Parts: sequence; C-alpha cells; structure tokens
Amino acid sequence: MKTRTIRIGLCGLGTVGQGVWKHFSASRARLESQLGVKLELHRAAVKDPRKKRAVKIPAGRITTDTLAVATDPKIDIVCELIGGTGLARRVTLAALARGKVVVSANKALLCAHGAEIFAAARKGGGHFFFEASVAGGIPIIKALREGLVANRFRLIYGILNGTCNYILTRMSLEGAPYAAILAEAKKLGYAEADESLDVEGWDTAHKASILAFLAHGVWVKTDRMIVEGIDRVSPIDIRTAATLGYGIKLLAVIGRDFENNELFVRVHPTLLPKDKVLANVNGVFNGIAVTGDVVGTTTYIGRGAGQDATASAVISDIADAVTLLTTGKAVAAGRPEQGPRVRLAPLEHVISRYYLRMTVKDQPGVLAQIAQITARNRVSIASVIQTAAGRTDAASLILTTHESNERAIRSTLADLARLKSVLEKPLLLRIGEFTD
Amino acid sequence: MKTRTIRIGLCGLGTVGQGVWKHFSASRARLESQLGVKLELHRAAVKDPRKKRAVKIPAGRITTDTLAVATDPKIDIVCELIGGTGLARRVTLAALARGKVVVSANKALLCAHGAEIFAAARKGGGHFFFEASVAGGIPIIKALREGLVANRFRLIYGILNGTCNYILTRMSLEGAPYAAILAEAKKLGYAEADESLDVEGWDTAHKASILAFLAHGVWVKTDRMIVEGIDRVSPIDIRTAATLGYGIKLLAVIGRDFENNELFVRVHPTLLPKDKVLANVNGVFNGIAVTGDVVGTTTYIGRGAGQDATASAVISDIADAVTLLTTGKAVAAGRPEQGPRVRLAPLEHVISRYYLRMTVKDQPGVLAQIAQITARNRVSIASVIQTAAGRTDAASLILTTHESNERAIRSTLADLARLKSVLEKPLLLRIGEFTD
Repeated sequence: MKTRTIRIGLCGLGTVGQGVWKHFSASRARLESQLGVKLELHRAAVKDPRKKRAVKIPAGRITTDTLAVATDPKIDIVCELIGGTGLARRVTLAALARGKVVVSANKALLCAHGAEIFAAARKGGGHFFFEASVAGGIPIIKALREGLVANRFRLIYGILNGTCNYILTRMSLEGAPYAAILAEAKKLGYAEADESLDVEGWDTAHKASILAFLAHGVWVKTDRMIVEGIDRVSPIDIRTAATLGYGIKLLAVIGRDFENNELFVRVHPTLLPKDKVLANVNGVFNGIAVTGDVVGTTTYIGRGAGQDATASAVISDIADAVTLLTTGKAVAAGRPEQGPRVRLAPLEHVISRYYLRMTVKDQPGVLAQIAQITARNRVSIASVIQTAAGRTDAASLILTTHESNERAIRSTLADLARLKSVLEKPLLLRIGEFTD
Repeated sequence: MKTRTIRIGLCGLGTVGQGVWKHFSASRARLESQLGVKLELHRAAVKDPRKKRAVKIPAGRITTDTLAVATDPKIDIVCELIGGTGLARRVTLAALARGKVVVSANKALLCAHGAEIFAAARKGGGHFFFEASVAGGIPIIKALREGLVANRFRLIYGILNGTCNYILTRMSLEGAPYAAILAEAKKLGYAEADESLDVEGWDTAHKASILAFLAHGVWVKTDRMIVEGIDRVSPIDIRTAATLGYGIKLLAVIGRDFENNELFVRVHPTLLPKDKVLANVNGVFNGIAVTGDVVGTTTYIGRGAGQDATASAVISDIADAVTLLTTGKAVAAGRPEQGPRVRLAPLEHVISRYYLRMTVKDQPGVLAQIAQITARNRVSIASVIQTAAGRTDAASLILTTHESNERAIRSTLADLARLKSVLEKPLLLRIGEFTD
C-alpha cells in the first residue's frame, strides 16, 4: 500500500509561523512514523518574501498569494497564522469551504466569528482546530474536550495573558508602579507597542470566550462579559493584598450554575488566596484551574504564548488533523448542550467578595458616609484599612466586603462617585475565594 | 442511517467499577449526542453478586463469569477494573485476542506485562487504553501522547502516589512522626491495610514505568530503576529540609539524555525547592512536571486516585474507544523511537545533589573520618548540620553535597557503613534542583 502524503500550507510566517516551520521540520520523521503518512510543508504565504527570516525556506515554496494557499487543491491542512480578523477570516472561510482542515492560533477571530466559522466548516465538510488559541503551551482544549469528557464544569478560572502576569509579578516582587514595569516590559519584548489589548483584559476575554464555548457550547461575546484590566492596579493594592494573604492576578472566570441553567464569564484583576496554586504561577506563565463534577479540580500550568509554545500546540493540531484525514475521526467543535439553552446570569446572581480602594478627604465623618452607602446597597463591610494616599489632604481607604453581587457593588460605586469626599474613581477588585 | 450501539462490559465492580457505572450512567445521554452512537453498559462481572453495592444494577446484567464478559461477542469495550496481574491479565489478553478495546486502570499489570499486552493487541486487532493508570484525574497520558506530540521529553518528574503525599504533607504540617501519621491514614482510608506497595515506592515505580514508555517507547522494569520509599523519612528531615528551603516529596523522575541516548527512571523521596510548583502540591493530590524541547515545562495537578477521579479517566478512554470503533482512529501505544535503541544510563551518569543523615557517636574526630570517606569517593560536601539525636551518646549529622552521582554516593554509603562511629544505616535523600 502506498503511503499517503499530507500537504500542509502555512499562511503567515511571522514569529509563530517560523516556529511551526522550524519545529515541524525537526520532528517530521518521528511524526511520519507515528502517524503512518508522509508529511510535506508544501507552501508558505507571506506579505514580503524578501524579509529576513530565521528559518531557511526554498524560494519556490514561498508565495505572496495567501488565498491561493488556502484554496490550493493539493493542500490538506491550512495553518492560519496571520492574526487579526480580516485576511485571516477570508483565508479560514475559503479553506473550510473546500473541506480542508484549518489550524489556527487566532483567538480574536474565533471569539468574533466562531459561530460563522463552525457553520462554514459544517457546510464545506472542513474542520477547524484551535489548540494554540488559548494558553499555547498547555493542551487545555484537548483536556476539556477529550480528557475531561465525563465532566460538567461548574467553574473554570485561569491566568490567560502572559503580559499581564509578567507585569503583576514584577510589581509584586519589586513594589514598582505599573507604568514603570510596563515600559520595561515593552523594552524587553514582553509587551506590545500598543499594550491595550493585553492590559485592558480583551485578550483574556477572547480566550475566556473560547473556553466557555468548549465547556458550555455557547458563544459569549465580550460585550456580555465583565472585562476589567490591570492598568489601575497600584503597588498599594499589591502590598495590601499581600498583608491580607492574597496575590493579585488577572483572571478569566467562567462560572456555571447548573440548577438555574445560568452562565457568566468575567475578566478582572483578582485577589487570589496565596495557598491557591495559581496565586504562585508567575512571570509569563499561564495557569488554568478546571473544576469538573466527576474529577474535582485539575490545574494546568505552562507558557501561554511565544514562538515555541504556540508551535507546540499548532503541531499537536496538525497531528490530530492528520488522524482526522486518514481515519475520518470527527472532533466535536463545542460541547452539545442538553436541555434548554443556557442563559447569561443577571448581575445579581454573580457573587463575589470585593476589594474597594478609594482616595478620600482626610476629615471626620467620611467613613460614616461611605458606610451608609454600602449599607443602603446591602453590601456588608468585612474590613477597613486606612493608609496615607501620597497627598496631605487625603487618605487611602481600602474596604473589603463580605459576599455581595455585581448589581449591588455597581450601585455602590455609582453612589460613592456622587460623594464629594471621594476624590477619585474608586478602584474595584474581586476577591477570588473559589471553592474548588 | 441506523445509529450504531456500542456495548460496554465491566470486569470488576469495586470502588472504581461502581464509580464508572454511576458517572457513565449520569453522562450517557450527553456522550451519546457527542459521539453519535447509542451506548449500553451491557454486563458487569463480579466475584460475589450478593454483595451490597452503592449502585443499583439489574440482576440480569450481573454475572460471576468474568471471562465470559471479556469474550462476549456483543461487547465492544471491556473495562478491566479487577486489579492485580492474575485474572486481570487473562481477561485483558482474551479481550484483545478478539479485537476488542480494553480500558484499564491497572498500572501493575501494564508495568509487568506491557510488552505482552501491546503484542496481543497488535496480533488480535484490539486496543489497550490506560489513561486511568497514572494520576487518574489528570489527563497526562493524552497530554504526553497527543497534546505534546511535537516534543521530546528531557525530563518528567512527578508526585504519583496520593498516600505518600498525604503522609508527607501531614508530617510536614504537624511535625509528627511517620508511624503515627501512617496509622491515622489507615484509619481514615487514605492508606491500605498493607501499605508497603505505596510507601516503599512500588506503586510510583509502576506509574513511572508507564510514563517512560509513553515518552520514550521502552519498558523499564522496576528492578532496573532506583526505587526508595518514604518509610525512613523522619520529622528531623522535614524540619531540616524546610530550614534549607525545601519540601520533601516522593518523586518519580524520568530523565533522558538525547546526546548519549540514555534514559533513567528513579523513584525516591526528594528535597524539592519550595518555589517549585510541585513542592506545594499537598495532601492526596498528584502533580507532574513535563519538560519538552519545544514547549518548555508544563505542569499538571489533580486527584490521582479515588472512585471519581479514576472514573473520569476511564470514561474519557471509553469515549476515545468509541471514536476508534466508529472511525478507525488508531492510537499509537508508545512513542516510536527513531535511531538506535535507548540505553539505560549507568549509575555514574545519574547526577544529583544529595542529603545524608547519619546518627554518629558524639566524640571528636567523627566528622574528619566522614569527610575523608566523602573525599575518597569524590563527593564534595556543601553543608554540615549537627543536631541532637534523641540519645545522649550520639548526634545527628546531616550533610548536603554538591552534584555527585549514584555510583559515587553508593560507594560512599558502603564505606560509611563500615565506620564504627556511624551507629545506624544512613538515610539518603536526593535534592531535586531540576532545571525546568
């Protein structure tokens, strides 16, 4: 019997594309022997063929016609490594329409157009694999979809953005302010020139959306989530949190209430108790804690991004794609839902303890005013810490609350904003005392 | 098109078998919709049908003829949940000879007869799945085999035995001696009546053997490993380790030297630096750190055993078996090795720092004698701590060494045993300063 040749096309040869080319070439012989096929990196599409690249690719295998790679009848597997939602979307849809397998690391595309992409795959007979889109180095998508197939997931929470975790880790180790660490992170290449996608929480939200789809079978758009970034976290918060026994991490939290058939997805800096494993996942590392109803909590830690970690995930998807092409194994896209469609939880069902830092006028009666407001909103105060605010006429007032909900805390914040004695917009953080 | 029915037989209805029955029944509808088949728990074989069980199984579905379940032509998937290497082996071989898929949690069987089992599977057209055999709740086998397929594994180390980790954790938290905690663990059901398989390291060694096979494609028998248990670890070791910045964990360590094509597998109590994630994995939890050449280090944490965690893994294997039966997806058993066959590393290539505790006569010149012996064996001392030994004529002497190797340290121990001033067999622990 003649060995079948599977041909792979790369769209995009940036950092990730070059990593895939390099590591795939290095492991090709082993993969061929394991999968029982010949594997060929057939063609790569780039914007600028003359650009210097770290990997040597024969000139005949390079093209600038990206769509031609996506539609090439010889190519079985298309790796979309362009990024963004423009050309990447056209490439993806074109390949899926021709029944190809698309392997992608593109969380923004998937979050924005997931339903369209899977519909195109069903219609065209294609398949869409995306292990590299969330926590690149960690095989979390395979774990949720296959390894933990027996489970329903009450709670998933994780550190999904390496840039934010790097900044928070250094702020915590050095006591330095956010802006200084961000500037250094940019110099060192740990943060993008435009950092907003990372530090404002949108990148994490895209990944949370994908995990929620895998676990619960529905797409939650980012405008239906709570999404808050790390840009207002200051050294005083990190110091106070440490005193109270917490570290601060930017978390995605996906909670499901099976009794009421409600789901919520939120992204925010979170005070995480120091004895939680994820509170000690530092630097550019990602970590995810998954609570299943059968298995309990399992935790996964690894590099979330970067050339090598992402290439590892892309190659794992290529191997699965080869198995699919040679045997017809169909991978379920998301989890099919039983029973009535899950609803997004209203804000009053999203429960948490809160941390609230305010800069207030240093005069008698301020605490009484604030306490009246929290009481009126039925938010119960657990602790009060007052410290210097770095100006003579004001003080920093930090409250932690007992369990409350997002509706009540939002109303509290609105009331506080109307107080003349509260000098800046209060900073709100969540306290993540998750019961694993 | 008529939906195909896949029939499952359970051999053994102990703790794990009942867990599989319970959780499989609960998730059956969802699994059927996801996998596109009808699923039926066809029959279960037990020793005593009249025994009280937590799950209700119709009398017609229970039999005492275990081999009849394994060979029943109606049954597609046989779950071997008997344990041991007697009947379990006969059941496994009989089912594989008939081309069935066997799902097993039996690490002892696999470690002792792995080569025979996979040969029988190849010959009979059957398949053997064993996700539940190592770190039940953690999908580590799928991660090694599929998720990290792009990687070669220089280092794998992990906490694979919940009983030992529970005992060491409580010793560490309470400062209590080994024997007292073991007795309590037995009362609470965290240790078996005969604890030797766990505390002497054999259970961990079985699991290490399976991980080594998955990562490197060869079976290493336990008599070719270093296997040491936790039964001689005392509160003084845990205190001293803590002072030096380490926790003590029973680890399996699988190291591969790709340049020299050498492999070693070892199991021993290990001083693990407190800043390693696994040093903080406590209680009955398991944890595994895997260093791949592409992805770097990824870490996995979860419950290693128990009814529910094991059932979760067995059901994941059942789902994969259904995919295999409906599409023909073949899972590679181990990793096919490229090039010349890997050798077991000689002891002088197995490098570590060491911790050595001796009870010595409290008299002048003893340290000089000991230092002469270590020098003669080219073992270089890093630190010396002397404390009271709980008897008036003796002292506890604790040495830590710089990097040495298993040959040199073994020879050192033999020389020390001949010293009259060394009163008991020295306790040797490894210091696990792994470079992830």
